[in-house]
Amino acid sequence: MPVENLVGCVANMQRTGWRGNHGGIMTVEGRKRVVVENVQPRVENGRFPAKRVTGEDVVVSADIFADGHDELDAEVLYRKAGDTRWRSVPMDFDGNDRWTGRFRVEEAGEYVFTVEGWMDRFATWQRDLRKRYDAGRDIALELLVGIDLIERAERRSCGADREKLAAFIAKLRSAKDDAGNLSDAWSPELGAIMRRYTDRSRASRLDRELPVRVERRKALFSTWYERFPRSCASEPGRHGTLKDCLKLLPEIARMGFDVFYLPPIHPIGVTSRKGRNNRPLADPGDPGSPWAIGGEAGGHKAVHPDLGTMEDFDALLCGASELGVEIAMDLAFQCSPDHPYVKKHPEWFRMLPDGSVRCAENPPKKYEDILPFDFESEAWRALWEELRSVVLFWIDRGVRIFRVDNPHTKPFAFWEWLIHGIRKDFPDTIFLSEAFTRPRVMARLAKVGFSQSYTYFTWRNSRKEITDYMNELTATDMKEYFRPNFWPNTPDILPEYLQYGGRPAFMIRLVLAATLSSNYGIYGPPFELCEGEALPGKEEYMDSEKYEVRYWDWNREGNLKDFIARVNRIRKENPALQDTFNVRFLESENDSILYFAKWSGHVWETILVVVSLDPFHAQTGRLHVPIRELGLCGGEPYLCHDLLSDEKYIWTGERNVIHLNPPVLPARIFRVRTRLKRETDFDYFM
Amino acid sequence: MPVENLVGCVANMQRTGWRGNHGGIMTVEGRKRVVVENVQPRVENGRFPAKRVTGEDVVVSADIFADGHDELDAEVLYRKAGDTRWRSVPMDFDGNDRWTGRFRVEEAGEYVFTVEGWMDRFATWQRDLRKRYDAGRDIALELLVGIDLIERAERRSCGADREKLAAFIAKLRSAKDDAGNLSDAWSPELGAIMRRYTDRSRASRLDRELPVRVERRKALFSTWYERFPRSCASEPGRHGTLKDCLKLLPEIARMGFDVFYLPPIHPIGVTSRKGRNNRPLADPGDPGSPWAIGGEAGGHKAVHPDLGTMEDFDALLCGASELGVEIAMDLAFQCSPDHPYVKKHPEWFRMLPDGSVRCAENPPKKYEDILPFDFESEAWRALWEELRSVVLFWIDRGVRIFRVDNPHTKPFAFWEWLIHGIRKDFPDTIFLSEAFTRPRVMARLAKVGFSQSYTYFTWRNSRKEITDYMNELTATDMKEYFRPNFWPNTPDILPEYLQYGGRPAFMIRLVLAATLSSNYGIYGPPFELCEGEALPGKEEYMDSEKYEVRYWDWNREGNLKDFIARVNRIRKENPALQDTFNVRFLESENDSILYFAKWSGHVWETILVVVSLDPFHAQTGRLHVPIRELGLCGGEPYLCHDLLSDEKYIWTGERNVIHLNPPVLPARIFRVRTRLKRETDFDYFM
Repeated sequence: MPVENLVGCVANMQRTGWRGNHGGIMTVEGRKRVVVENVQPRVENGRFPAKRVTGEDVVVSADIFADGHDELDAEVLYRKAGDTRWRSVPMDFDGNDRWTGRFRVEEAGEYVFTVEGWMDRFATWQRDLRKRYDAGRDIALELLVGIDLIERAERRSCGADREKLAAFIAKLRSAKDDAGNLSDAWSPELGAIMRRYTDRSRASRLDRELPVRVERRKALFSTWYERFPRSCASEPGRHGTLKDCLKLLPEIARMGFDVFYLPPIHPIGVTSRKGRNNRPLADPGDPGSPWAIGGEAGGHKAVHPDLGTMEDFDALLCGASELGVEIAMDLAFQCSPDHPYVKKHPEWFRMLPDGSVRCAENPPKKYEDILPFDFESEAWRALWEELRSVVLFWIDRGVRIFRVDNPHTKPFAFWEWLIHGIRKDFPDTIFLSEAFTRPRVMARLAKVGFSQSYTYFTWRNSRKEITDYMNELTATDMKEYFRPNFWPNTPDILPEYLQYGGRPAFMIRLVLAATLSSNYGIYGPPFELCEGEALPGKEEYMDSEKYEVRYWDWNREGNLKDFIARVNRIRKENPALQDTFNVRFLESENDSILYFAKWSGHVWETILVVVSLDPFHAQTGRLHVPIRELGLCGGEPYLCHDLLSDEKYIWTGERNVIHLNPPVLPARIFRVRTRLKRETDFDYFM
Repeated sequence: MPVENLVGCVANMQRTGWRGNHGGIMTVEGRKRVVVENVQPRVENGRFPAKRVTGEDVVVSADIFADGHDELDAEVLYRKAGDTRWRSVPMDFDGNDRWTGRFRVEEAGEYVFTVEGWMDRFATWQRDLRKRYDAGRDIALELLVGIDLIERAERRSCGADREKLAAFIAKLRSAKDDAGNLSDAWSPELGAIMRRYTDRSRASRLDRELPVRVERRKALFSTWYERFPRSCASEPGRHGTLKDCLKLLPEIARMGFDVFYLPPIHPIGVTSRKGRNNRPLADPGDPGSPWAIGGEAGGHKAVHPDLGTMEDFDALLCGASELGVEIAMDLAFQCSPDHPYVKKHPEWFRMLPDGSVRCAENPPKKYEDILPFDFESEAWRALWEELRSVVLFWIDRGVRIFRVDNPHTKPFAFWEWLIHGIRKDFPDTIFLSEAFTRPRVMARLAKVGFSQSYTYFTWRNSRKEITDYMNELTATDMKEYFRPNFWPNTPDILPEYLQYGGRPAFMIRLVLAATLSSNYGIYGPPFELCEGEALPGKEEYMDSEKYEVRYWDWNREGNLKDFIARVNRIRKENPALQDTFNVRFLESENDSILYFAKWSGHVWETILVVVSLDPFHAQTGRLHVPIRELGLCGGEPYLCHDLLSDEKYIWTGERNVIHLNPPVLPARIFRVRTRLKRETDFDYFM
């Protein structure tokens, strides 16, 4: 095959699949010598965006190298989707052919970036000239080579650069006679100017643009409180209303929550309605499950009449907003048999041979009060559109956070289309995926667009379980696209640990959720009231609010509201706790004591969290303090301020004994300030 | 955005880069619910082929899953490049959404494969029907659903299938009256027939074809012997010839080598010729470095007159072939100043301002006898063509193995083009990359097409160094594309270990190279004669053959020829040693004893290699024998046959003490046969 046919050869290689545009540099210019590969962050080779929030840096790294020993240079090119011009930041060489550059994303929306690398002929010349000179070789000829390079750059330059380059040329021409001028040849100043005029005609650019989705900060740092509005009445024996919810808001805000999530507020079906404790048949007066959506009063765009009116909802939204709290809506894409869709759009459901609609089922279990949509329907396009209109309906009213029920039972393609479309017009919309299912499925939902995800945290209790899981979330590819939201309980799950561990167990799980993950939430009031009673042998709540109206004495003895408020205030005041991916586990010499650091951007302020995992017995551990990373010398004392108890300790050295007595306080959240930034920081220590 | 615009939306998403054809399923059919991702083997997402040799299986694995809980099915589709029809093999579910299938590659050449997954509606129905029935539910309606599915399949079937499906339908129709017929509904036979008629119109296929390059077996299993032909004379004081080489072949074959690699055999330049021990100026009579290619007598397509004629070369090739040995040629793409190219094609070289050609340099070092090609030349196309014609010239004469000198100083794109083109017409051609350079560069050369690669083995001596390096080669992505070739020495490298360790060190390094890697080679006679003399403080041979003609007394006292012959015979007789990627390191309770297993396809035959890494002192270790994996019970005795000493041991249990005395024998290669295959295997134990 003659080289003239190179283009055809490449085309052919593309056809046979092994020279396509996949992850490498493809070129018919045989002189592009630089390789750019293994670029990060990258999710499935760019098929999905990496995720960041506004104000974060995107740290881009890549393997960049070429044949031979020439000097290289590289930069990151990035732009917001829609912008036509690239912005660029230089990359630094980190060793072993790895390069890094970073850019900050300030606006919510889609960004793309790519990486370009090239041979820096002038830098190579500078480096080699210096080596030749130091080895005592005659460099007269080499000087001419360099002068030629500078002259070419000079012709392309203007202004001050041009003048400076001309001056350098003059000096180098006379260098033979004046050795003092020679050192100008390898001066960094000359290198810096020449860098601006490098010939990049044979630069190698990654063959694709890698996407980054930027969301608002709340996608990474949010504090959720879930509560059934119908159980919000201020006195027993009454169906709660949205107006009742409004009254609870100040206390929810005082506890430090910034998202108030309501299970579905829509009309509930009557047909096959479930009774208390999920009994197959409802008694008269049983309210049914809020997830059996739709009845005479409407479907997904209506408010349950017993909860109030759409105006009440608007008032709730407005009241919340004044307190810095957002309302999160539940998106449960399923219907009760009485939902208006069933009559109007039977084509969206799966029919049985007798003409009835198939109900939700996970054989042998059957959920007669719920009909799933048939996403394999011929009319799938209309179904997708309608579901999208539901989201837009609530967005129109002002909702910007959605907790999505069971997304893993609807097609991934649907979610990708829905979320991408919504975010185009409303980039501040946040979607939380409630998928308690297999790892690959949970990961895929995060990839296709969910901002946050429920996790297995709910069942991770031992030190090994927690550290393994955190490492999976924060030290693998998952960190690029999966933002955990930790829930110690939900209306569906009262874990064994909380059933048997009493009040200390609730404190332990709260501190873990709130400090390990920057996104966390609780289902209250059962949580803050330390309710541990489950159906026998199950992880289901006894007398679950899912099937009945409950009244809660919110201020009863032993409640954790003040403790929660304190933990949430600590989160708000300490940037290190507003990120999930900055965790580092440390040694406590006791498997019942979990101990980890969260580093903020400033080394001088670090959070050390110590949690007993044993709700029954006192535990003692020896904490290994990474004093070197904290900027301390061996013998230097440092102050540890426990933000939970407000106690202060002066420690020295790398080992410090800790004693945790769960009934009193099973955890410590130390703030360690080590490198003083300003004089006024001294105040803190006084 | 209305769903009607879905196509536009997708197109737009592609344009913005984050919905391209990268690693996932792209579709405008919203009902394709199955995801196929993380498919292996895959090198840079299909940009480069995975490598296999003829007769090997390609084991394909993938994450395959969908929303919901339906049963899935999947298969691997594969074909040889050029074939239009796919062949297929079913995939098995391995748990955690991972599926595996395998196909065998019998011919050298390029293959592609892809993976397709789909919902198996009938299998789902069978599974759920059974669960419903077991739960005592009324299944009359569900039976009708299934019968409908079978009837649709029946209409598409023919022959025996059609008859059988009709029979099943009849039985199921009467199942209501005859409960005995009901079990037919979930019979595997019905499932198997229905599987053949599954509706795959919404199957999801990986969006790309992944390439596999299949080479002949020798790419994976080869035994190299390197020797300078000019030092092959049978008596001192004479320049060796190709005819001398011919005479050595029977002994080379007896030692068990199947590749005889000759450093360049071309005319050598006179200008700036190097003297003995790399002195800057040659004395009269000094022969120069064979890598300074080209002189009056010709260039890369000529034979050095002192070595003989082209006919001599043909005779050597022919003689080797008769003994089962192949001749490997050196490809050193560079020129002496006297190479005909320099006058005829000055445009292929880099000129200095004074009109002279720039010589090879790694400042401050300078190689005046060698001129590199300028791959950035305007005339690069002609240069590529000419270099290709060099390869074709030797292929024409019958050469099929090339050892490429310093490939990392020529562009990757050149090698990819060259090797791909050559292999298209001559798929049995093998290229060995002699790149002792940075890891990424070595890896990239393997990716772009080299069949085998030199490695860092030469400098890996301790147990930790060796196990870490082997794990990198065999347990990371590298295993898909990088085939190591282990060399304990080369004309350029006499490692410290061999300089000081004496004869035991040579035995140790030989056994390591020959058993860890299925491709290995030595540079002789210095190796088998245990030559350890280096230039002071360097890893260069004293009086290196690179710069002078040497005479070797090949049979001198203490030579390792018989030992090498024995090791190579063991390799030939034991399939477990003909693969590199089947290694497993085991515990010896002594850091000076490396101990590992190589598993063959048959569990009943395993090789256990034990090597002392200490050439000076006797070492004792306790070998942990993985008896369970060997199919043994705790107390069962088993026979270990040391193929090196021909001693046999009866061992029991998991711990067995080993004593290695380097001056006698620093290694053992045990064959453990455990599960008898045939009666005749008993003979072996007698």
